[in-house]
Amino acid sequence: MKNLKGALMFGQSGGPTSVINASAAGVFIEALKHPDLITKVYGAAHGIKGILDEKFYDIGQEDKKELELLKYTPSSALGSVRYKIGKGPDGDKDYDRILEVFKKYNIRYFFYNGGNDSMDTCNKVSKFLAKNGYECNIIGVPKTIDNDLCGTDHCPGYGSAAKYVATTLMELNLDAKVYNTGLVTIVEVMGRNAGWLTAAAALAVYKGLGPDLIYLPETPFDVDKFVADVKDVCAKNNNKCIAVVSEGIKNKDGKYVGEFMASATDLFGHAQLGGVCFALANIVKERIGVKVRPIEFSLLQRCAAHVASKTDVEEAFNAGAAAVKYAVGGETDKMVTLIRSEKNGEYFCETKLMPVEQAANSEKTIPAEWITNNGTGLSKEFVDYALPLIQGDAKAPSEDGLPRFAKLKKVLAKI
Amino acid sequence: MKNLKGALMFGQSGGPTSVINASAAGVFIEALKHPDLITKVYGAAHGIKGILDEKFYDIGQEDKKELELLKYTPSSALGSVRYKIGKGPDGDKDYDRILEVFKKYNIRYFFYNGGNDSMDTCNKVSKFLAKNGYECNIIGVPKTIDNDLCGTDHCPGYGSAAKYVATTLMELNLDAKVYNTGLVTIVEVMGRNAGWLTAAAALAVYKGLGPDLIYLPETPFDVDKFVADVKDVCAKNNNKCIAVVSEGIKNKDGKYVGEFMASATDLFGHAQLGGVCFALANIVKERIGVKVRPIEFSLLQRCAAHVASKTDVEEAFNAGAAAVKYAVGGETDKMVTLIRSEKNGEYFCETKLMPVEQAANSEKTIPAEWITNNGTGLSKEFVDYALPLIQGDAKAPSEDGLPRFAKLKKVLAKI
Repeated sequence: MKNLKGALMFGQSGGPTSVINASAAGVFIEALKHPDLITKVYGAAHGIKGILDEKFYDIGQEDKKELELLKYTPSSALGSVRYKIGKGPDGDKDYDRILEVFKKYNIRYFFYNGGNDSMDTCNKVSKFLAKNGYECNIIGVPKTIDNDLCGTDHCPGYGSAAKYVATTLMELNLDAKVYNTGLVTIVEVMGRNAGWLTAAAALAVYKGLGPDLIYLPETPFDVDKFVADVKDVCAKNNNKCIAVVSEGIKNKDGKYVGEFMASATDLFGHAQLGGVCFALANIVKERIGVKVRPIEFSLLQRCAAHVASKTDVEEAFNAGAAAVKYAVGGETDKMVTLIRSEKNGEYFCETKLMPVEQAANSEKTIPAEWITNNGTGLSKEFVDYALPLIQGDAKAPSEDGLPRFAKLKKVLAKI
Repeated sequence: MKNLKGALMFGQSGGPTSVINASAAGVFIEALKHPDLITKVYGAAHGIKGILDEKFYDIGQEDKKELELLKYTPSSALGSVRYKIGKGPDGDKDYDRILEVFKKYNIRYFFYNGGNDSMDTCNKVSKFLAKNGYECNIIGVPKTIDNDLCGTDHCPGYGSAAKYVATTLMELNLDAKVYNTGLVTIVEVMGRNAGWLTAAAALAVYKGLGPDLIYLPETPFDVDKFVADVKDVCAKNNNKCIAVVSEGIKNKDGKYVGEFMASATDLFGHAQLGGVCFALANIVKERIGVKVRPIEFSLLQRCAAHVASKTDVEEAFNAGAAAVKYAVGGETDKMVTLIRSEKNGEYFCETKLMPVEQAANSEKTIPAEWITNNGTGLSKEFVDYALPLIQGDAKAPSEDGLPRFAKLKKVLAKI
């Protein structure tokens, strides 16, 4: 559908990252360059929920300088959402409502930024509008620290989170061995089903300051083997061991270790508020009798914009800008992908497109042949894959020694 | 004691910081400039323990470039220790043993880098050697993220940890409000008896992206009041609240909240491996029924050299270098202090000296008049005090997108 003229709607969805706002900046700054076709630029408050609630911001009223600062501002500046379209109390009316709002505001460009679930939303909206003969160019913009979207070499958000994980583990490596007494450190990294982010620990190993053991959700987790592995490292290493576990490690029956260990150790029926690292720490303490320190990277790993990867920030921006260029050029029903190649022997990344339904609800995990050391390490292939994604520093300008993040006016759109 | 000629011994003690190695760099680089008086430069492995065990490194054999990199390398490169002198199994022989080792290696300069306990060690060694007529110039070099040493305006290590706490809380502030659903975030910061580091959360408040509530060990902590405070914030703020608590919060009887809550909630008799934030999270979940996320900054806050304060790095280096200059000039039995003044209306910091026994085992807490908002906030005076300490960025050079930390050869000294 070429030369559509009308308003643009952009939404952020799913867990935020250090660079999801960089993609927003890419969409907004590029969109404002096309006033001939894009008559208005809207940002949905809390993703698809903001569209249903008719609550979105008029981005044309924002200062250009603040839009630039979005590149270095973590979290989702517009607000995010985990709403499954069609599954709410009035879910059956969701699609009709979206069509109604799109018609009212003459939305002819729609971009949705998120992971698998968000691409599913994007796909469903795209198909529904097409079926109803409403012309709208729709492009998904990928993001996820989990790096588990299919069809793209990697996902914006992953590089920065990986850089945080590797940098912090190098620092922890130095800290954890400072005393001449035993210490087992168990670090928990995000990733429910794909181990990409946990695997970033291998970058610290590559630099000689990594953990001893890395456990991914791709490999069935056995508590007894884990204890034996830790014991082995302790025996060789003056009772010191650093293990990194994914929050999503599962036993051979596919049950999350964090879940069944929590129910086994908490008689009060409290939800286990910490993660699997605390349960494993108790086990190690009981069975090995060494001092243990569990450390959960928690939200820090997804919002540490102060240690973002420049490569990631630029690619996230480019993915957003590319989405607009593709849509203005007539593309729809697609997701932007990042394709790795080489230029003069150096890593080079360009954007392409794939059908959005192929990205929806699929999950890319780490190739089995990249997992080494009896399920506790990563091969050189992984390091070669991940290293280019964490290159360079990019962060917010400093004000009073602290980051100056974007401040949006968030003027609600009216018609 | 002027113009002593002999070897120099330097040791690191207590919990490491992002910049304790910057002080080591200051001592080593300055010491190597005085070959006329300082015949050898030794670094003790694991502080006083390395002296007792006659295990120390010959720093003269290290590459100058690696000594420079120590400025940006977190943790204690020589190894640290928490050994209380005179309290070990052969404790009564400790002092004699130190004298013996000092005589054997002709140690005439001794520098010890640490907090209150380490200054106590420094003081005891100083007094013992003097009593026994052994000439040795001894200077303590302060460090602690707790910032609780008396007689110095602030302590090397504090500024960088404070910068980490403030920066990370700003990022968390953006992340924690991203969904349109309720969330109470409880962040735990180090500091057993002094709240300086927890108070750094007020710097994020000053920048408009701080927590709603800050609890210091200086103010008696009441669980019911805490729950009421959180409820109040939630009521005003769409069920969102960020509270920051010191690990050292105590009830009105002076008992650590983390300790008595742990024993009350853990029927298995496991030691509570996480801190007080987990116990408080359970309480908030039960009594308010909102989603809660406890986050413990754990070791990350003391080793995050990638977000170190340039001011702190420089002052830590200068404190080490000044110790050597003072000692070469004949000073002994002192601790280096940092004295704040102004130069052309700008923050300016110079080093001075104080008797080391005055620093030993004393603790400086936050002035009561700086604590506001019914024990949940800090005054402008605190912000004015802390802000100059977090200025500027200083970090290790990048290699493969990750920090290139110092690599010491650690050649054991022989005689």
